[in-house]
Order: sequence, then C-alpha cells, then structure tokens
Amino acid sequence: MSNVKVIVSYDGTNYSGWQKQKNTSETIQEKLEDVVSKFHKSKSIIYGAGRTDAGVHAKGQVFNFDLKVDIPLNRLPQAFNSELPNDIVCLNAEYVSDEFHSRYDAEAKKYIYRIANNFYRDVFMRRYAYHIYMDLDLDSMSRSLKCLLGEHDFSAFRAKKCRSKNPVKRIYKADFYEEDTNIYALEVIGSGFLYNMMRIIAGTVIEIGKKKRYYKNMEEVLKSKNRSNAGFTAPAKGLTLKEIYYPINWLFSNKEGILNENL
Amino acid sequence: MSNVKVIVSYDGTNYSGWQKQKNTSETIQEKLEDVVSKFHKSKSIIYGAGRTDAGVHAKGQVFNFDLKVDIPLNRLPQAFNSELPNDIVCLNAEYVSDEFHSRYDAEAKKYIYRIANNFYRDVFMRRYAYHIYMDLDLDSMSRSLKCLLGEHDFSAFRAKKCRSKNPVKRIYKADFYEEDTNIYALEVIGSGFLYNMMRIIAGTVIEIGKKKRYYKNMEEVLKSKNRSNAGFTAPAKGLTLKEIYYPINWLFSNKEGILNENL
Repeated sequence: MSNVKVIVSYDGTNYSGWQKQKNTSETIQEKLEDVVSKFHKSKSIIYGAGRTDAGVHAKGQVFNFDLKVDIPLNRLPQAFNSELPNDIVCLNAEYVSDEFHSRYDAEAKKYIYRIANNFYRDVFMRRYAYHIYMDLDLDSMSRSLKCLLGEHDFSAFRAKKCRSKNPVKRIYKADFYEEDTNIYALEVIGSGFLYNMMRIIAGTVIEIGKKKRYYKNMEEVLKSKNRSNAGFTAPAKGLTLKEIYYPINWLFSNKEGILNENL
Repeated sequence: MSNVKVIVSYDGTNYSGWQKQKNTSETIQEKLEDVVSKFHKSKSIIYGAGRTDAGVHAKGQVFNFDLKVDIPLNRLPQAFNSELPNDIVCLNAEYVSDEFHSRYDAEAKKYIYRIANNFYRDVFMRRYAYHIYMDLDLDSMSRSLKCLLGEHDFSAFRAKKCRSKNPVKRIYKADFYEEDTNIYALEVIGSGFLYNMMRIIAGTVIEIGKKKRYYKNMEEVLKSKNRSNAGFTAPAKGLTLKEIYYPINWLFSNKEGILNENL
C-alpha cells in the first residue's frame, strides 16, 4: 500500500460539488472514486483536501488515497484521465508519507473569484466568471481587501450552516487585479476558509464596487463578526480553487519522491 | 426600413454552424432570425458576413438586416440578448448605408486558431482549443507562416467541396504566439478565406510543430496548389472568427452614425 497525493482540475459546472452525496452520483469525489475502485477492482475511497460547492471549479484540488495496485506513478495521471469525463483531469501524482492527509496537512489554500465586467455578457466566460455589466469602482474594491490580511475571526463571512469549530483564519494575500481584458480576479490565500467565506467576501467586495458600500465598510463588517452585516453570497461559478499549499517535508517522502514532473 | 449592422459573439460548441440548414434548427443564423422575426412579428432574414462551421466560435461575427420596427439602436443589442440563448450575444448595433452587405463589403477577416499545449488536457479550454500534449517546435511553426503573406493562390488549403470561384486571397498578417500559459494562437488576417482554409493551414502548422514537416515545406505546399500536399484539417473547436473589417465609409452612414459605443 502506498499513500499517493494527486492534483486534480475540474470544471464544476455540471457537478453537485466535490463531496459524495446520497441523492446524486454527479460529484467529483465519486467520479474519482469510481476510477480508483476500477484500478483496485474493489470499492475504494479517496481523501479530498476540501469540499467545493456545486458549480465551483478547481485548478489545483488535492486528494490522497492508498494505491493498492502496481501502476507506475508517472503513468497514474493518464490512467485516471483515460477513465474520467472530459471536465475532470488529473495533473500530477506523487508518493507521500503514510501519515499525509490532504485535508489535515494543508497549510493554506488559494482561491480566485472572477468577475466579467463587460457591458454585454462574455459567452466564453459564462461558466467561469460572474457577469456584472455596470461600471465598478475598482480602486475601492482593491482598497477594501487590506483589512483582511493577518489573523481574524471571520464569523461575518461564514454561511449560517457552517459547522467549523474555529472561525479564526489567517489571510496571507488578498489582491484584486485585471487578469484579462474586462476579467477581474479577486485572489485570496488563507490558512483555511469557512463555509462560503470566499463567496461572501466576493459578494461584499462586489457591493463595494457597485458603491452600495464604502470601502472601509469591509473592516466594520469583519469586526462585527455578524454575517448579516456582510454582502451577498456571490454565485458559485465565479469561484476557482487554485492551489493548496503543504509543508515542504510532505512533498519529499521517504519513497521515490516526486516522480512526475510533467505538471 | 433601416439597414442595421450587428456584431455578434458565440460559443459554437452546441451548434451546427452559422448557416441555416434543412435538417436542423440549431444554427446561429436561425437563432438570430427567430429573434428578428419576433421583433417584426413576421418571418425575417439576416445576412451574415460568412459561414462558420459546426463547432467554430466567433468573437466578432457580423450580420446586417432591415430593421422594420422602432427599437432605439442603443437598446437593440439588449433586445436581442434577452431573447438569445446564453451562448450567443450581440455586442453592437449601428445604422449603415442601405447598400451595405456584411458579406460583399467585408474587406478582411481575422481568425485565431488556438492550441492548448499541456501534457494533460486543460478542462477550461476544452471547448476553445485543440489539445496537443507533445512538445511542439514553436519556432518552426512561427517561421513557416512568413511565406503566406501577400497574394497567393490558396488551392492547397481548400477543402475539396469548396465552391469558391477565386482561390486567390491576400494575407495581411500571419502570426503565432503564446496567448496565455501553454495556450498558443495562430492569428491570420486575410482578404478572404476558402472553405476550411484556416483549419488546413492550422493542421499544416501543427504538423510542422510535431516535426512531421520542415518549416519550409509550407511554401512548397502553397506553390503546389494541391490539397493533398497540405496537412490535416485541424478540429473546428480551436477556431474563432475574431473580427471582420469593412471600409471606413460604411462605418459612418448618412443616418445617425455609430450610436452604440458600448462595445
């Protein structure tokens, strides 16, 4: 048995999110577990680094699982990909220590929330960005983010049904920039994210951009620790889980190390 | 009656191309004619600048039509958009001279052919780029294009079923560059394009990139005027009609001129 860490990318448009559910088989986790079960010829499970909601995308989601058959690691991504639907793709696989768990060992995550700010909708971004046709106060949106840096209680930016025990998270980076013509990206790296935290931050930033709020209101909302003071929950389709960060020691296991450098 | 020129963008993935067909209603032209017919409360037709094949996309396709009802021109794009499916969008509408015809008056067109050159497929570009996992000789691909510039007989790059009378076209620009990380764009501006011309040029360039052909072979193929010497017809999904160019005098009609500057 070998503990393997896999990086996976997906277009979340057609899925009910990452996590396995009773009433639907259309989740990313199930599509991946189906492939592992096929490798093992027996029902198998994988451990994801975090749940993404229905419609949320991932460029660098991570999971780990016990590989019980002899597939060369440099062929493992392609072995997954030949069985996966065309909106899910494995990008990398590497051996990690037996103790590694993709969720418990994650040090930080990077999310991007995309806004398409065209007068008319952009058909090519319709699945990957939230369309806002009105002019946005981009400068205020950018300035509103500074107060989020550092360690704070993010209770104001958590969905009511969030069951996380600790609302205190550390934000390492919070930027807002033009990624492509009329496509704006809100990029946040944090030690962790409460349920809907990124989408509620995005919704509040958007309301600042629409001048419904002054940019300094972000800090007032944060300090209030009260969800009802924050903005709306921005639509899932604008959100992409970009990357998950792990302590460097996990990345070089005592086994074969990083075997697949094709990423 | 007013002759109106409209710029339209579409994701061609789910359509049988631009042109109206007997056996399917899923063409871009029909979706647009349905909307005009609704405005006019009678069956109406539009005149497209060029046919795009099934699966080909457009950022700046153009059509014109006789507007017979009183809709303010600055509201016309939104009037279209509220009736169109979410993968077709009108970006601009302006009055033009009565003699203007989107096809006959087009001076040049710009096409982009996109290649996603990742080892594993890019799920976010799967509808908009042709995936090639192997290393490409990018320099040779770029160098192969120079011989296309100027006026040539492009018979080598036309599909057998092409019915165009004149195979001589003028190429104003032919570039190959990295548009985004691992996304390469072949950009060609020409006075006109024969049937499948852009996709056969792309296929030949790709074969040069895969070192199946030497870069100077492009010129030999061109001079041979023989389709069987050229490369394969690259898949439709990589192709986007980017822009159509008209003589400047058509853009300022003797009516209200350019009314919609929201593009």
